Amino acid sequence: MGKDDLKLLSMWASPFCMRVKVALAEKQIPYEEIMEQDLMGGKSELLLKSNPVHKQVPVLLHEDKPIAESANIIAYLDEVFPDKPLLPECAYGRSRARFWADYINRKVHPAGGAIWNAKDKDEVEAAKKNFLEIMMYLDGTLGDKDYFNGDTFGFVDILLIGLSSWFPAYEKFGDFKLEDHYPKLAAWIARSHARESVSESLTNPEKIINFVIMMRKMYGLE
Amino acid sequence: MGKDDLKLLSMWASPFCMRVKVALAEKQIPYEEIMEQDLMGGKSELLLKSNPVHKQVPVLLHEDKPIAESANIIAYLDEVFPDKPLLPECAYGRSRARFWADYINRKVHPAGGAIWNAKDKDEVEAAKKNFLEIMMYLDGTLGDKDYFNGDTFGFVDILLIGLSSWFPAYEKFGDFKLEDHYPKLAAWIARSHARESVSESLTNPEKIINFVIMMRKMYGLE
Repeated sequence: MGKDDLKLLSMWASPFCMRVKVALAEKQIPYEEIMEQDLMGGKSELLLKSNPVHKQVPVLLHEDKPIAESANIIAYLDEVFPDKPLLPECAYGRSRARFWADYINRKVHPAGGAIWNAKDKDEVEAAKKNFLEIMMYLDGTLGDKDYFNGDTFGFVDILLIGLSSWFPAYEKFGDFKLEDHYPKLAAWIARSHARESVSESLTNPEKIINFVIMMRKMYGLE
Repeated sequence: MGKDDLKLLSMWASPFCMRVKVALAEKQIPYEEIMEQDLMGGKSELLLKSNPVHKQVPVLLHEDKPIAESANIIAYLDEVFPDKPLLPECAYGRSRARFWADYINRKVHPAGGAIWNAKDKDEVEAAKKNFLEIMMYLDGTLGDKDYFNGDTFGFVDILLIGLSSWFPAYEKFGDFKLEDHYPKLAAWIARSHARESVSESLTNPEKIINFVIMMRKMYGLE
């Protein structure tokens, strides 16, 4: 047993799993990915045993000890494998990173989900407006910097870039382009997607869009 | 300017402010409390400037630098003032603490609010059932320990004990007693309330109940 005994319980469509994969790639930590077989199907015994409270991926098993919740997993990895740190060194910088992590965690994915879950045009418009208002604050805090913490791709970037795998689906079903509203944020996405750690970890947006179409059919939305 | 230049933007009814006050008392850190004048009234300029995203207390000003969100503030305090640590020393222990912090943050206060916000008996019953299910997991992870992390009152205890100031209101409007369902959890509350750091930081439950009655009148619920 060593530092390398890491297993990631994962699912290909989960943007939260993609976050952890980006973090592991950035830190160049080897691991084994164990895929849940189907979002629609039952959950694996290993997942239910490893995360009995939420019963959700991702779960990291480090020497068989489970750690759940993507932001929590990444903070743990940053403490246990301090090379190539993801969180800022100073306490105030870390508090800012945790603040935006919490903002992203609470708001972005549910707001995006409301777009493709909308039942009619009015609902789509309201959901889109809400999503864009949420992104406004992220655009504002990014500002003219390359990454959220400045020059270095880190914790906040990873949390948001994982979720960005679903943005093309929000754009498609909301009929908008993020770059028309927030060109700096769109440039940040392009800049981040150019990183190997990101491109190799994020599921192809077309596959996500098809997954969303399947769910919309299931929910009787198309 | 020194370590003691700490101001807490606060509101007497906010269980999130109470958390920070407990943490500061546990760590014996002096600070100045600046009270928002009224939950119903406008927010102060200082609050709007210090937390422009959420516009909510608590905000800690450390040498005029704002830190928002109670769990984030407490983690920051624990890093900057390492004496009398609140988070566990080992990375895995910290990951467990963050997991339960997130669970408590997402679930407990909204579920309790649904009880006193309920419009009729059926809604009260459903909200109470949901609240008790959420508490079940906390009772389970507490188990036979004195505190959530074992023998020492720490991060998870502080996050939950702040919220406990509103539990008598939930019990009153939900017509139940937590101790009838989870005697160990109720004993943990009593044990924690016996600490000076807690008793001096938590608002009297009667005052919270009267505040809830006022809000119920405002919402046309009584």
